[in-house]
Amino acid sequence: MAQAFKVASSTSPYADLPPICTALFEAKANKGLTFDQIGKAVGADEMWVASMFYGQAKLDPEQLEKLAEILDLPAANLKAEVGSHWWPSRAAVCEVPPRDPVLYRLFEGVLVYGQPIKALIHEKFGDGIMSMIDCKILVGKKPDPKGDRVVLTFDGKFLPYAKW
Amino acid sequence: MAQAFKVASSTSPYADLPPICTALFEAKANKGLTFDQIGKAVGADEMWVASMFYGQAKLDPEQLEKLAEILDLPAANLKAEVGSHWWPSRAAVCEVPPRDPVLYRLFEGVLVYGQPIKALIHEKFGDGIMSMIDCKILVGKKPDPKGDRVVLTFDGKFLPYAKW
Amino acid sequence: MAQAFKVASSTSPYADLPPICTALFEAKANKGLTFDQIGKAVGADEMWVASMFYGQAKLDPEQLEKLAEILDLPAANLKAEVGSHWWPSRAAVCEVPPRDPVLYRLFEGVLVYGQPIKALIHEKFGDGIMSMIDCKILVGKKPDPKGDRVVLTFDGKFLPYAKW
Amino acid sequence: MAQAFKVASSTSPYADLPPICTALFEAKANKGLTFDQIGKAVGADEMWVASMFYGQAKLDPEQLEKLAEILDLPAANLKAEVGSHWWPSRAAVCEVPPRDPVLYRLFEGVLVYGQPIKALIHEKFGDGIMSMIDCKILVGKKPDPKGDRVVLTFDGKFLPYAKW
Amino acid sequence: MAQAFKVASSTSPYADLPPICTALFEAKANKGLTFDQIGKAVGADEMWVASMFYGQAKLDPEQLEKLAEILDLPAANLKAEVGSHWWPSRAAVCEVPPRDPVLYRLFEGVLVYGQPIKALIHEKFGDGIMSMIDCKILVGKKPDPKGDRVVLTFDGKFLPYAKW
Amino acid sequence: MAQAFKVASSTSPYADLPPICTALFEAKANKGLTFDQIGKAVGADEMWVASMFYGQAKLDPEQLEKLAEILDLPAANLKAEVGSHWWPSRAAVCEVPPRDPVLYRLFEGVLVYGQPIKALIHEKFGDGIMSMIDCKILVGKKPDPKGDRVVLTFDGKFLPYAKW
Amino acid sequence: MAQAFKVASSTSPYADLPPICTALFEAKANKGLTFDQIGKAVGADEMWVASMFYGQAKLDPEQLEKLAEILDLPAANLKAEVGSHWWPSRAAVCEVPPRDPVLYRLFEGVLVYGQPIKALIHEKFGDGIMSMIDCKILVGKKPDPKGDRVVLTFDGKFLPYAKW
Amino acid sequence: MAQAFKVASSTSPYADLPPICTALFEAKANKGLTFDQIGKAVGADEMWVASMFYGQAKLDPEQLEKLAEILDLPAANLKAEVGSHWWPSRAAVCEVPPRDPVLYRLFEGVLVYGQPIKALIHEKFGDGIMSMIDCKILVGKKPDPKGDRVVLTFDGKFLPYAKW
Amino acid sequence: MAQAFKVASSTSPYADLPPICTALFEAKANKGLTFDQIGKAVGADEMWVASMFYGQAKLDPEQLEKLAEILDLPAANLKAEVGSHWWPSRAAVCEVPPRDPVLYRLFEGVLVYGQPIKALIHEKFGDGIMSMIDCKILVGKKPDPKGDRVVLTFDGKFLPYAKW
Amino acid sequence: MAQAFKVASSTSPYADLPPICTALFEAKANKGLTFDQIGKAVGADEMWVASMFYGQAKLDPEQLEKLAEILDLPAANLKAEVGSHWWPSRAAVCEVPPRDPVLYRLFEGVLVYGQPIKALIHEKFGDGIMSMIDCKILVGKKPDPKGDRVVLTFDGKFLPYAKW
Repeated sequence: MAQAFKVASSTSPYADLPPICTALFEAKANKGLTFDQIGKAVGADEMWVASMFYGQAKLDPEQLEKLAEILDLPAANLKAEVGSHWWPSRAAVCEVPPRDPVLYRLFEGVLVYGQPIKALIHEKFGDGIMSMIDCKILVGKKPDPKGDRVVLTFDGKFLPYAKW
Repeated sequence: MAQAFKVASSTSPYADLPPICTALFEAKANKGLTFDQIGKAVGADEMWVASMFYGQAKLDPEQLEKLAEILDLPAANLKAEVGSHWWPSRAAVCEVPPRDPVLYRLFEGVLVYGQPIKALIHEKFGDGIMSMIDCKILVGKKPDPKGDRVVLTFDGKFLPYAKW
Repeated sequence: MAQAFKVASSTSPYADLPPICTALFEAKANKGLTFDQIGKAVGADEMWVASMFYGQAKLDPEQLEKLAEILDLPAANLKAEVGSHWWPSRAAVCEVPPRDPVLYRLFEGVLVYGQPIKALIHEKFGDGIMSMIDCKILVGKKPDPKGDRVVLTFDGKFLPYAKW
Repeated sequence: MAQAFKVASSTSPYADLPPICTALFEAKANKGLTFDQIGKAVGADEMWVASMFYGQAKLDPEQLEKLAEILDLPAANLKAEVGSHWWPSRAAVCEVPPRDPVLYRLFEGVLVYGQPIKALIHEKFGDGIMSMIDCKILVGKKPDPKGDRVVLTFDGKFLPYAKW
Repeated sequence: MAQAFKVASSTSPYADLPPICTALFEAKANKGLTFDQIGKAVGADEMWVASMFYGQAKLDPEQLEKLAEILDLPAANLKAEVGSHWWPSRAAVCEVPPRDPVLYRLFEGVLVYGQPIKALIHEKFGDGIMSMIDCKILVGKKPDPKGDRVVLTFDGKFLPYAKW
Repeated sequence: MAQAFKVASSTSPYADLPPICTALFEAKANKGLTFDQIGKAVGADEMWVASMFYGQAKLDPEQLEKLAEILDLPAANLKAEVGSHWWPSRAAVCEVPPRDPVLYRLFEGVLVYGQPIKALIHEKFGDGIMSMIDCKILVGKKPDPKGDRVVLTFDGKFLPYAKW
Repeated sequence: MAQAFKVASSTSPYADLPPICTALFEAKANKGLTFDQIGKAVGADEMWVASMFYGQAKLDPEQLEKLAEILDLPAANLKAEVGSHWWPSRAAVCEVPPRDPVLYRLFEGVLVYGQPIKALIHEKFGDGIMSMIDCKILVGKKPDPKGDRVVLTFDGKFLPYAKW
Repeated sequence: MAQAFKVASSTSPYADLPPICTALFEAKANKGLTFDQIGKAVGADEMWVASMFYGQAKLDPEQLEKLAEILDLPAANLKAEVGSHWWPSRAAVCEVPPRDPVLYRLFEGVLVYGQPIKALIHEKFGDGIMSMIDCKILVGKKPDPKGDRVVLTFDGKFLPYAKW
Repeated sequence: MAQAFKVASSTSPYADLPPICTALFEAKANKGLTFDQIGKAVGADEMWVASMFYGQAKLDPEQLEKLAEILDLPAANLKAEVGSHWWPSRAAVCEVPPRDPVLYRLFEGVLVYGQPIKALIHEKFGDGIMSMIDCKILVGKKPDPKGDRVVLTFDGKFLPYAKW
Repeated sequence: MAQAFKVASSTSPYADLPPICTALFEAKANKGLTFDQIGKAVGADEMWVASMFYGQAKLDPEQLEKLAEILDLPAANLKAEVGSHWWPSRAAVCEVPPRDPVLYRLFEGVLVYGQPIKALIHEKFGDGIMSMIDCKILVGKKPDPKGDRVVLTFDGKFLPYAKW
């Protein structure tokens, strides 16, 4: 196999992740699988699986076994590093402010439209927030003759402020 | 009118906006209008109108006239302050990192899910970004017996990196 | 009244609050009322009332009327500034990191004990967070011969991470 | 033992702790013990033990011996690394501001409610602070049909400002 | 004149400029002049004139007189505020990092392409820099059927490092 | 070969790049090739190639093969590290603000001339930005008896703000 | 009185203090009193009085009356602004890091000698801190033929960490 | 020797010090010596010796020999690493702002009392500073029935500003 | 007088200085005096006088009288604002890092040459610093056919570290 | 040779320099040479040579050979690491703001005297800067009975702003 893909485990963000994550990325590349294909095998959305690869989400033991199977990695290794005893250090792989242009555009979305989004949430729901914990994030592709479009959806529960 | 609503023009974010914006917010409150109602009158999405109230978007002269009409404000004043000669200082009303919990949750969405979103965009579209310039943002409300949900959508054009 | 108490409205944090807040603090001082007394009149915990004085919480119109009554302030003024159209800009009156020693100690509590608190929450509840939106905060005083103790309680709902 | 749990010693926060701490976390996971069980064996609250695992608290030699015993680790190793000659570098494992959502919510609690907490402490105790040195922190679980609740308590001595 | 354009002198960046600058922007808008038209009248490139409006460049007394003439402002006022005794506080009107998307893209150009630009300058010129003092900046418009293009040129003297 | 050039792979920016990049820089130096010569062999501008060396651009597989050929490196290694599965972490090798004088001068160009550039773009194109994604950057050398000049050109598509 | 001393109330740190503080500084200068003389009149150390002038300490009503007397200011004004209802916003008048050389040297003392001071406190007292709440600070002058010396003393209670 | 004390040389602050410093700390712990005992052997105050252990002070060759003797380390090793050719990188082992509570309290002392200390120095000495170079720092222990006290003294030369 | 020069007292750095400083700058401009001429009248170097104008140095009463005389300002006003009771808030008018190119170049001098300057000072003088308190700064002009040169000299006393 | 001097290559600033620099410092120490002696051998000022040791300046191949000769190092190694293909990453070894007291004093010189230096440069030369590229820095020692003085000179070309 002339083209055994590798990721640079000593560079960001891989150096900040459990070492098994490097193996996950390399196995995915060498198998030629998409996150969607892995997600279907694992029983989770592609976004949740991608989040797990970046140390941002936790799979349960059954999912880890399916993940091991489709990627031909030893399930024991996966459980040893990111099993039931492991908890994500969320947000650790995104600096503030992000410099990479893909990440920055998302961040700019908050900078520019954050206040009006807040105003609309208040107007429609009252005093509270959109949860980022009970929130599903979806990345879609919408064909468009003028250039395909990314459709990024945050579907989060509204949480009203408790009063006491 | 016992309850003429006011906004504190000397506090953030109003102090950083053209003074007419304070008048816009007060007129909206006193008229009891929603951004959606104003948007329909102006011929723009509620989000675009809310963005304009926060100095993040520019309306054309016809829209300013309709805005003046529905809010009972002199059109000349609107054109004088945020007319054709005016350009938004975008992102000026959101600090980095945002501290308000509503804004912070959006920001946290980028921190936690930014890298996996980037991975999915690359996987589906190739080397490029989701534009935040040719991007429509929509705030929807989805009823749910376990608690209503905010559905926030970014619908942005994919821009491939030019090569030369 | 030789001792009409005043607060310095041009200094922090008052300058960053709706102007009516200065009036609230001055009326409270001149009436010689505690937050607990005001809270009982308004029908809310002393902590929620204190939060409202600092622009961190929203009272409903009935509560504003009771507040106006006990403080001898015109209810219309309160509703005009912090009424139904107003939404808190939360966290705006606490810098990062806080410098005042009282605030810093709370912050230090997070710095020193944050990771072990996270570990215990994960161990007892699973992958999720303690909500700071559906959370009640209480400040108690516990007499102790070696020196009275502050008992500060955060009683927040556990929110498990959604999976999809 | 197919599932020998490991922690990624080269990643945060483990890389910033005495190496023995990695061994502590791995032994705890492999033994399947809770902090509460370890605490009872050591003669300390679960929170104090968890703090010690994260390098935020110091155990005395007798406690280290009991800790070694329950975790099947050589007591000499524990004393060599975190024995009487060692002092915690407190707060070293929490960045400012914290990005992980669990930690951030605690931090947000200070940002939003810090000023009113300060106001209530002053009102009830006078000019001084709640000590974060003579302070006990407890993490409780309160069952609730609408969702279990985390009850986080800071029980700290009030320290009045000395005058001279 | 129903539409006397105004700029919000109390907001950024106008509040940080000599007050006469607000008058310059308003006169330009009300006269309906472009920077190019003003530049031709003053005898300077449009970019140099725009820089002067933002307090980033200094005009000599003859240029100030021509500027006063074309904008119908008293020359004495211009000389009094930004005359021979005045020196620009350069870079004062751009925060670091810039948040406005137009400014941020320029900044991103440095972030992404800075190192390769440095490599090419070294390869072609040797050890030194491109001067930002003896540097002309030009903004051109290049029509393109796929969307017009901005052509931004920095034409700066190469300065070799002195050795001693 | 007495003078086998080396780059310090453990220092910035090489330590933050895929390891193959160190090999690229060393091969270039030992072959005595310019970026222009490599660019011509690869079929890309010297700037694009230099960007790739610094991890800021992606070459397609055919270009990687040509790059391997001219630098006498195994093509498989290049594809394994920076092949189709790899995506640039753009902007990772430039700190904010940059300290190196060459980089700083570019940055200063944004600080000093950013606002006037924005004003001219708005005046000539309307509400939008110069794309840094669909943007070609060129570094030229212009002989000048008073000292050669660097001509740095950003040729980027104008992107008007979408409205909705 | 040709030389009525004034302090610039619109500049730092006076602008961040209750307005009465400006009056205190001016009265002190015009009376030609030292902090020591004022302290003796008030019944407090010169350091405590100076701290109060900078909004860093609280005097009780009797002390405010004596302060008013020696400075010829109306006691009612003092009590109205910094009376029993007022609490210091401590640390608000010192930026981080301090830039003024006098303040910076103190700060440098912490930077350079902080770790060894911590080591000595641990060695002599055990696990705990020197309180900055129950701490007296004294500024002395020690004549020395080679140049007088400042003797700055922090006399603070040792607080051992609570264990639970 | 069951209890050979070790320090974690890969963690802060040891990783930032010359490697010999780790050996110094371990030898001190294993010998059971205090800084005071070492200081007496070396002919320097305990504070100066502790500072040297943290890379903040320089010993002369004779002192290094005595240090080697009392700690049973090869003098040649000490001279090789921290001998006459070595100069301290002062302040490198204290972050800004410090997070460890012991260090933070010292820092808070500057934040809260810095301005009044400056005022007293000016009042007593004139325009100048307390030197942190010609300054002796002493850490004393003062027994007190209500709790022992740390007495920290900075004894620094007053340096008047030169005028020219 | 058609050209009464003014400085924008509401902008940086004037807004951060005692108001009398604005008057000083305007009087200097209107009189057409150089700092050297003023310095000779006052009996101080031009640099010391310029420093005083920017609130960075203190003149004694005799010098203030001479300053008042040459600038035709009331001496009483000068003494009232920056007389014997006033002490400079040094460094308050230079941000970190400075953005203005003139200031930045000085700062860059420290960034680039700071470590070698430190090495040379240590080599020539031993362990200590160049005082910035007992330091004279001189700005000279050296004609040069290739372009005049600025000769900036810091002449500061070497201060050896005290040992104890 | 009992005293082979070493520098801690894993600590700052050595870890950020090409590895050969560690060898340079060690060879210099072991040879007992001053920068001045090395400079004379190399044909450059001591300051330029010291700058090269810290990775802040580039020597040409002939100078590298002479450097190799006087330090008894293989010239090929020097050329391999810091030869013609290498370019300094200037300013990389000085943090912002610098914490070491020697470096900080230089920085403080800019903070305190930067604005008056700017004013004098403008007054004497016009609108422009003192170049830090065409600038010679000299460190001299001036004997003085009251304490020797460091004379630090920046001799830089004045660069007037280009106009276009």
